[in-house]
Amino acid sequence: MGPTETLAQFVVDTHLRDIPSKAVEISKLVILDVLGVTLAAARQPVARILNEYLRECGAAPKAGVIGSELRTDTALAAWANGSLAFVLDFDDNIHGSTHIVPAALAIGEGNNATGATLLEAYILGRDICFRLDAALDAGRRKNQGGPTSRGWFAGGTTGSLAAAAAAGKVLGLNAQQMATAFGIAASGAGGVRRNFGTMAKALQTGNAARNGVTAAVLAQKGFSADQTILEAPMGFASALCLEGECDWDALTKDLGKFFYMEQLPPIKRFPTCTPAHRPIEGFLALRQQHGFTAEDIESVESDFHLRSLSRTDPQEAIAGPNSMPFILAIALLDGKVTLEQFTDEKIHDPRVRAAMTKVRHRPNERRPGQMEPPDRITVKLKNGAVHTIEVAERATLKTTTEIYAKYMSCATMTLSRTRAEQLGQLIDQLENVPDIAVLMTCMNGDELTID
Amino acid sequence: MGPTETLAQFVVDTHLRDIPSKAVEISKLVILDVLGVTLAAARQPVARILNEYLRECGAAPKAGVIGSELRTDTALAAWANGSLAFVLDFDDNIHGSTHIVPAALAIGEGNNATGATLLEAYILGRDICFRLDAALDAGRRKNQGGPTSRGWFAGGTTGSLAAAAAAGKVLGLNAQQMATAFGIAASGAGGVRRNFGTMAKALQTGNAARNGVTAAVLAQKGFSADQTILEAPMGFASALCLEGECDWDALTKDLGKFFYMEQLPPIKRFPTCTPAHRPIEGFLALRQQHGFTAEDIESVESDFHLRSLSRTDPQEAIAGPNSMPFILAIALLDGKVTLEQFTDEKIHDPRVRAAMTKVRHRPNERRPGQMEPPDRITVKLKNGAVHTIEVAERATLKTTTEIYAKYMSCATMTLSRTRAEQLGQLIDQLENVPDIAVLMTCMNGDELTID
Repeated sequence: MGPTETLAQFVVDTHLRDIPSKAVEISKLVILDVLGVTLAAARQPVARILNEYLRECGAAPKAGVIGSELRTDTALAAWANGSLAFVLDFDDNIHGSTHIVPAALAIGEGNNATGATLLEAYILGRDICFRLDAALDAGRRKNQGGPTSRGWFAGGTTGSLAAAAAAGKVLGLNAQQMATAFGIAASGAGGVRRNFGTMAKALQTGNAARNGVTAAVLAQKGFSADQTILEAPMGFASALCLEGECDWDALTKDLGKFFYMEQLPPIKRFPTCTPAHRPIEGFLALRQQHGFTAEDIESVESDFHLRSLSRTDPQEAIAGPNSMPFILAIALLDGKVTLEQFTDEKIHDPRVRAAMTKVRHRPNERRPGQMEPPDRITVKLKNGAVHTIEVAERATLKTTTEIYAKYMSCATMTLSRTRAEQLGQLIDQLENVPDIAVLMTCMNGDELTID
Repeated sequence: MGPTETLAQFVVDTHLRDIPSKAVEISKLVILDVLGVTLAAARQPVARILNEYLRECGAAPKAGVIGSELRTDTALAAWANGSLAFVLDFDDNIHGSTHIVPAALAIGEGNNATGATLLEAYILGRDICFRLDAALDAGRRKNQGGPTSRGWFAGGTTGSLAAAAAAGKVLGLNAQQMATAFGIAASGAGGVRRNFGTMAKALQTGNAARNGVTAAVLAQKGFSADQTILEAPMGFASALCLEGECDWDALTKDLGKFFYMEQLPPIKRFPTCTPAHRPIEGFLALRQQHGFTAEDIESVESDFHLRSLSRTDPQEAIAGPNSMPFILAIALLDGKVTLEQFTDEKIHDPRVRAAMTKVRHRPNERRPGQMEPPDRITVKLKNGAVHTIEVAERATLKTTTEIYAKYMSCATMTLSRTRAEQLGQLIDQLENVPDIAVLMTCMNGDELTID
C-alpha cells in the first residue's frame, strides 16, 4: 500500500474513540482560538469584499459565513471562512486550523454533522497536515531547502489535501474515495508566500478549504483522480520537492499511535506573522527594563525576516502583520502589539511613519549548524546608551485561561459577549454537540451586534 | 517597471486595432476548435457529475454551462466550461484555450461583452500564456528541467494567470488591478500532470479558468495581492522554478510587436494526449503500407511516453487518451483513432484488452543534444515479418476546411447541425458580434438535442 492509500485508509478507519483524550482537549482549545481569530477578521475590509462577491454569486444558502448574515454554498462558505481565518495572521503559528476548521465546519453544517464528527475530522485533518508538511518540507529543516523555502505556502498546497481529509471524513468517504479526494485536491493546490501582507494571503487558505470541500464532494459523486498522487511520478511531491528532498518516513511514522494534536501547537500572543514575535518580545522587554519612551530612541535594529515579512512599506492594515518596521514602530509608540493597532489609520499615521524610520534592518547572523539563530534587538538612545537583548524562544499562550481570554477579546470584536460565551461553551463541550449547525447560529445571522 | 507590471500594462494598453489581422483570423479558428471539443465533452460522464454539483450549488444564473441547460455564476461557469474543454485532450496541443476561452466567455457573458472584446481578451490572454510558459518552463527545452518536467501542469499554473489576463481585459481593469489579478490568480495556481487520464486532469484547467475570473472580479473590487508576483522573492517563479531556470527575456521579448496567435498552434488530428500522435501516425502508416490486420500481428512496440501517458491499464474512458496500449489497440483493431472509440465499453471490451497485450513499451533513445527524438514504431507479424517506421513530425490540421470539419464532427455530438453551423458562423464573424451572449444561446439551453 503506497503512502497516499495508507493515509486515506488511516483517515477512514480512525474514529474519535481511537484518539487520545488529550488530543481532543487540545483540539477544542485550538478550534476556539481560530474561531475567535476568524470572528475578529470579519470586521476587516477583506470581509466586506468577499461578502459582496458572495452576494453576487447568489448560491444556495447551505452554510454560514462567519461574522455576517450571509449563507452560501458549502464550498463557498469554506472559501470565505478559510480566508477570514487567515486575514489576521493570528491563528496558531503552525497554521492548519485556518483551512481544516472551515472545510469541516461548512460541509458539516450542510450535512448536520455532530460535534464529535467535527472534532474527529479536525484532528485527522490536522494529523495529515502535520505529516504532509513533515514529509514534503523536510528539506527546510535540514538545509533551508524544500518547497516553503522556495516560495510555496503550505497552507495552500498541503493544506488543500489536509482540508480534503477533514471534509472527506465528515462525508464518510471510503478509502478509495478519500485517496481520490487527495488527488482532486492536488489539482487545485497552490499559493505563494509572496502574497503575505496582502488580502490574497488569506485567500490562499480559503482556496485550500474550498479545494478540500470540493474534492470530497466530487469524490463522493464518483469523480476520478490519481489515487497515488503523493508518491507518483509527476505527482504532488514530484512537483513540489526536488529529488531526495522528501522524508517519506515522516509521512506515516507512528501513524495512529501518535496524534500530532496531542501536543499544543504554539498559540500566538501577537497578531503578526511568527518571525516578528521574538523581536517584539525583545523590544518590549528592553523597554520595560530601561523605561525609555519613543522620544528617547535614536534607532531600533532588528532582523526584518524579509522572507516572511516583506512589507517594509505597508499601505493597508493587512500588510501590518508582515511589516517589521510597522510592528516595531507601534511597539515603540504604544508599548504593546495588539489587534486594535492594526488599522489603516495607524498605517498612515505620521507619528507611526516617523517611528518606522527609526527601525532598521540588521540580518541575524546564522551560525553553522544552527537552524534558527536567536533574534537580537538593539535599541540606541539619543543619550548614547545602547541596549541589546537576544531572544531565543517565543513566548506563546499555553493555559486555558490565556487562550480563552484571547478568544474572548477577538470574538467580541464581532459577537456580543453573550454569544461569544455561548460559542465558547459549545466548543468546550464539542464532543457532545448533536448538530454543529448550532455553532454557526452563534457566528452567522442578523443579530451580530456587539452588546 | 518589473515583468509583472510590464505584462499587466501591455494587456491593459493593447486593443484589437493593435493586433495583426492574421492573429485575429487564427484565433477564430482556434476558438472554434476548442468550442467543438468542449461540446463533444458535454456528453462525457465528467459533465454529468459537474452539472449535478453545480445544480446543488444553486448559484445565480449569469452564465451558461456549455452543452447543458444549466446557468450559474460566472466563476462556476468558467470552472465547468474550463473543465469540459480539457476532458477529451483534443484541444490544440499547446493548451491554453481550455482556460482562456471559458474565462473570457463566462465573464463576457455576464457583462454583455462584444465579440471584439472576447477576441481581444483571448489573443492577449493567450499571448501572456505563451510568454509565461516560454519564460518559466525554459528549463524544459534546455535540459528537460523546469516545472513541467517535475510534474506541474502549465494549464493550471501559468494558465491561472493567463485566464486572469483575459478575464481582466473583459472587465477593463487598469494596470494596477491587472497586476493584482495576477497576484490573486497565483494564490490558486496549481495542478499536476499525474492527474492526466482522470477526471481531475480536466478540473485543473477548470480551476485555472475559475481562478482567472475570480482574480479579475476581486481585483476590480479592490482586493489586494502582490503586484510583482512573477519576479518577487517567494513569488510565482521563485516557487515554480529553480535558480537560473527562468528565461526572463522570453517573458517580454517583442511584446506587442509579435503576437503568438499570429502562428497557428498545432490543431490536433487525434483525440489523445500529444505524445501519442506520432506513434498513432506511424502505426496507421505501417498498416496502410503493409495491409496487415489485427489477427496478423504478434506485437507492436512503441515508446509509451509514460510521463504524460501513464494510464497503461485504463479503467474508464477518460483514461483512454493517456493510455498508449489502449490507443494503439484501437488503431490495431479499427484502423483509426477517433472520438467515438473512447468509451467505457471499448475500454473494457475483451477484444481491446487482448489487443492491448500485444502493445509493448520500448522507450525512445534520446540522442545527445536532441530535444525530442523521432518516435519509432515496430510491428512484428505472426509470419515473422517485422515492419518499422520512424516519425519525426506530427501531422496537425492546418486548413480552415480541416479545422471546420473537426469542429462539426465534435459539436454535433451535442448540438443539432443547424445550431453547430450557427455557432460556426458567429465565430467566423466574431469581431462583429455585438453581444457574445448569442454564442451561449447556441451552446446552452433546453433545445440541445441532435437533429
